[in-house]
This record gives sequence, C-alpha cells and structure tokens, in this order.
Amino acid sequence: MSLSGTETIGNATLRAAMQEVARDMDAALDLLLPLSGDPRRRLFEAMRHAAIGGGKRLRPLLVKATGRLFHLDPESLTRVGVAVECIHVYSLVHDDLPAMDDDDLRRGKPTVHRAFDEATAILAGDALHDLAYEIAADERTHADPFVRCELVRLLARASGPHGMAGGQMMDIAAEKQAFDLATVTRLQQLKTGALIGFCVEAAAVMAHVPPEGRTGLHGYARDIGLAFQIADDLLDVEGDAGLAGKALGKDAEAGKQTFVSLLGREKARQQAHLLVDQAKAHLHGYDESADLLRAIADYIIERDR
Amino acid sequence: MSLSGTETIGNATLRAAMQEVARDMDAALDLLLPLSGDPRRRLFEAMRHAAIGGGKRLRPLLVKATGRLFHLDPESLTRVGVAVECIHVYSLVHDDLPAMDDDDLRRGKPTVHRAFDEATAILAGDALHDLAYEIAADERTHADPFVRCELVRLLARASGPHGMAGGQMMDIAAEKQAFDLATVTRLQQLKTGALIGFCVEAAAVMAHVPPEGRTGLHGYARDIGLAFQIADDLLDVEGDAGLAGKALGKDAEAGKQTFVSLLGREKARQQAHLLVDQAKAHLHGYDESADLLRAIADYIIERDR
Repeated sequence: MSLSGTETIGNATLRAAMQEVARDMDAALDLLLPLSGDPRRRLFEAMRHAAIGGGKRLRPLLVKATGRLFHLDPESLTRVGVAVECIHVYSLVHDDLPAMDDDDLRRGKPTVHRAFDEATAILAGDALHDLAYEIAADERTHADPFVRCELVRLLARASGPHGMAGGQMMDIAAEKQAFDLATVTRLQQLKTGALIGFCVEAAAVMAHVPPEGRTGLHGYARDIGLAFQIADDLLDVEGDAGLAGKALGKDAEAGKQTFVSLLGREKARQQAHLLVDQAKAHLHGYDESADLLRAIADYIIERDR
Repeated sequence: MSLSGTETIGNATLRAAMQEVARDMDAALDLLLPLSGDPRRRLFEAMRHAAIGGGKRLRPLLVKATGRLFHLDPESLTRVGVAVECIHVYSLVHDDLPAMDDDDLRRGKPTVHRAFDEATAILAGDALHDLAYEIAADERTHADPFVRCELVRLLARASGPHGMAGGQMMDIAAEKQAFDLATVTRLQQLKTGALIGFCVEAAAVMAHVPPEGRTGLHGYARDIGLAFQIADDLLDVEGDAGLAGKALGKDAEAGKQTFVSLLGREKARQQAHLLVDQAKAHLHGYDESADLLRAIADYIIERDR
C-alpha cells in the first residue's frame, strides 16, 4: 500500500508502541499468572497459553494511545490494558470451543481446548474473565475509587449481554438468518465495537474527562471498530491463514452475511477507508499527542493479520 | 430431626427470610433481564432460565443475614446478593456442560444446554458473569466507591483461579488423583468456601468493618462452608434426586474422593455437626441480630436438598 510521508512517520511510532505494549502485556501477565505447585497448575498453564505471547494487542494499544492525550501514568494504562486483554482473550478461548466456532488454531498456536481439553478451556476462560475485574478494581490501577468503579462498570457493560456477549449471540443467529446491513452493523458494534469503545473511553475516565467531553473519542472508536471489522471480513476472504495464525474463510462457510458479502469487496474496502478518514477527523481537536491514535486508524485497514 | 426450642424459632425466622430472599432475587433478576426484541432474545431467555426461579438462594441469604448485624440497607444487600447469585448461577451453567459434569437437570429444570444449546449456555454463563460485576460496581449498590471496588475485588478473587475456578480445576483433577483429606478440604474451600466467605465478608465491607474486625465472620464462613460441603456429599449418597432437583451419586461414579468417602458417613456427619457448633461459637460476640446466621448454620446440615 502506498503511504504518504506522514503515515510512514505514524507507522514508525506505531511499530515502536506495538512492541512496547506487547512486551508490557507479556511481562504483566507473567507476574499475574505464576505456575502453582498444586493441582490448579493446569489451570494456570492454560491461562498462560491463552494470554501470553502473540496477538496484535490492539486493545491495550488503544488504551495506551488514548492515555497519551491526557499524559496518564503508563503503569495504570498497562494495568487497564491487561484487564481488557484478559476479557478479549477469555472471549477467544470460549469462542474457539467446539460448541462455538470449533477452531484448532489461534495466534499461531493450538487453541486452548486442543492444547489442553474442553473443560480446562472453559475454566481458563472463566478465570481470565474474573482476573480482568480483579485488576480493574485494584487500587494499583488508579488512585481514585470512583474511576476504578467506572472502569469496572463500563468494562462489564462492554463485555456482557449489552456488549460482546450479546454480539456473539447475534453472530450465532446470523448462521440461520440473513441479516441486512443495519443488523450486521449492530452485531459488529456489540461483538467487537463495544470493547474497542471501552479501550478509548477508559483513558478518558482515568483522566476525569466528563461524558460530554468524550464525544470525539466515541466517534473515533465507533469508526475504527467498524473499519476493523470490515478489514477482518476482507482478511477472511483474501488473507493468509499462516500470517493470521487462525483459520480463515469461516464466515462464507457458515453462510453468514458480512460487510463483504453485503457490500462486495470493492465497496467494503472504500467504506473502510472512509471510516478511517472519519475516525481521524474526530480527533481534530487534539494535537500531535493523538498521532498514535491516527496511526492505529491507518493500521487497522492496512494490516495483514 | 429433633430440634430444640431455640432452633424451632430459628427455623421460623429462617423460612421467612428464605422466602423473602427468593422473592427479592426473582424480582430483581426479572428487571435486570428484560426480553429484548432483537436477535439477542435467546441469550436473555437462557439467562432467565438459569437465574430466575428455584435454587436455595443460600448465598444472597448469607449476605442478607450478615447485613442484619450492621443494620445495612436492604436494597443494597439485595443488589450484592444478586451479584453473588449471578456468579453462582453462571458457574452452575458452565459446570453442567457436557465437557464438564454433563448434567441434564438443575434446580428441577433442564440444564441450560439441554433447554437451549451448548453455545447459548456458554454465552449465557459468560453474560451472567459480567452482569455480576456490573451490578457490584454500580453506585446504586453502595454510596461509597471504596466499598464498591472492594466488593468487586473480593468477588473476583473468590470466583477466579484463587477461588471457585481454581477449586473446579482441582475437582477435575480429583477424578484422576486420589486426594487426601487435606487436599479435599483445600479443594472445597476454593470451590464453594471462597464464594460463601465473600457473602459474609461483603456485608462487613459494606459496614466499613476493618479486616481485623472480621475474624469471627471469617471463622463462621469457613466452618459453614465445610459443613455445607459435607452435607452435600452426604446428600449425594443418601439424598432424593427429586427433592434435590439434580442428579445425585455422581462423585462415587466419577471415583472422586469426598469427605464421605474419606471419613465414612457417620464420622462425616459428626464432623459436620461439630463444624456447625464451631461456626455458631464464632458468633459469640453478636446478640440476637445474629440469630439468622445461627439458623442458617443449622439449616446447612439439616436440609434435604
């Protein structure tokens, strides 16, 4: 893809930030999940298999990048990043189960139920789910308990029936019903958009930005969330499974309507670019402290995995 | 069972309190889980199937009963009770899955994966799991955000790898390894004891009782938790599946060591009575405001389901 000069600078910043976040996540999770010597050891092994190493770490990266706007403490941002990543990873572990998507490969490794067994995968997902909230509520995450409660509440809202879990339910229904574009949009806003929205809002909450001051960030999150999903749908039909580290072509196989099946590839690609431009326009009020967020918006549709 | 006069009074109080808690739980959950008109409807139906109606509601009862010691707001106690019940119910839904205990009956109804399907059961469990934390962190639960954060943190700790989920993992390992009494005790303290401990501690946290003032309550919770498990093990071999509303005799079938297999029925029964006496002794510093907690301790080994 041809990049303008600005975007190349953005990409260099982005690469450095992604490497830093990946390192921070692995280090934090390594400390949080020590291997016990008792019969729970298998549970911790499975949690580590799922959570440590690999993944784009897009969600903690968004937390970090939004935190730059408000000069927030990096340690606090890492902890919130770990919490949201634990939610994301738990959802992948459960989503990969035979009763759900029945996947064998995730982040280039065997899925948890393949490397261990189904019962262990269910429990490891559940335990990561709890760990997310334990981290968010801990005083080391933020000094202000109002902020910590709001982080927990928003994270739970973004993950539960009015967020990710609700989107997953719609995704299952999509195998039997032919959804229109509005319903697919709603599905994706719940399934992936809500948690992406949390990542951006979290930093604003930590900086005590009142809800009415978060409009631009909400718009940014909504637009990159949809662009991310369109890019995912395009990768599902055009991508390289080796690079992706997971099975592709699953939506068509399951007969699900996606942005690509409903719009066609070219129009979907245009729509994704439009959304990224729109996302960046929402950041007009911010100076160069928002450059990482801008670079993430570009990356979301330029990535190959 | 022959009851002394005091215990009869305790039982009348207990019956009234149990009915009140059952009614409060169903009413609160009915409001929290309205049936949506969109494709998420099936998720809410499954959550309602799992959470509304039936069950002893022992955990919210313990929250209520401990709240009496400190004259806490009944509304707040109900909300904390709902949160802990959501955790308990989610764990039952996942525990009943074919990959775990593979049960068909729960609380006298088909299990969620039997009434719906496995994917819906996994998601309904996950969504109830989030709902618990959303409720705990909400300002309607307690005015003090320090208290709400502490409720979230303790609930997550009691539910995750260092609590219930860790106990479940040990329980799976128990099918392959012959655990001794110390290990079975540790297993049960994690699997059921930690969440029971949370119920009792929650009210103390809400009343701003400092950790050093909670020793008696911790002792009470530990003892009734173990007594509860011994009673469960006895019901598993002696009980009536119709009354229990679930399959019995599963531990022996799975070849697991239990308090009953390790101690024998008579010694297990004596041990349970001893624990209940000990639990009540831990309440010596409290006046008649603790009578409901005393009645619950008796009920725990006298129940037939």
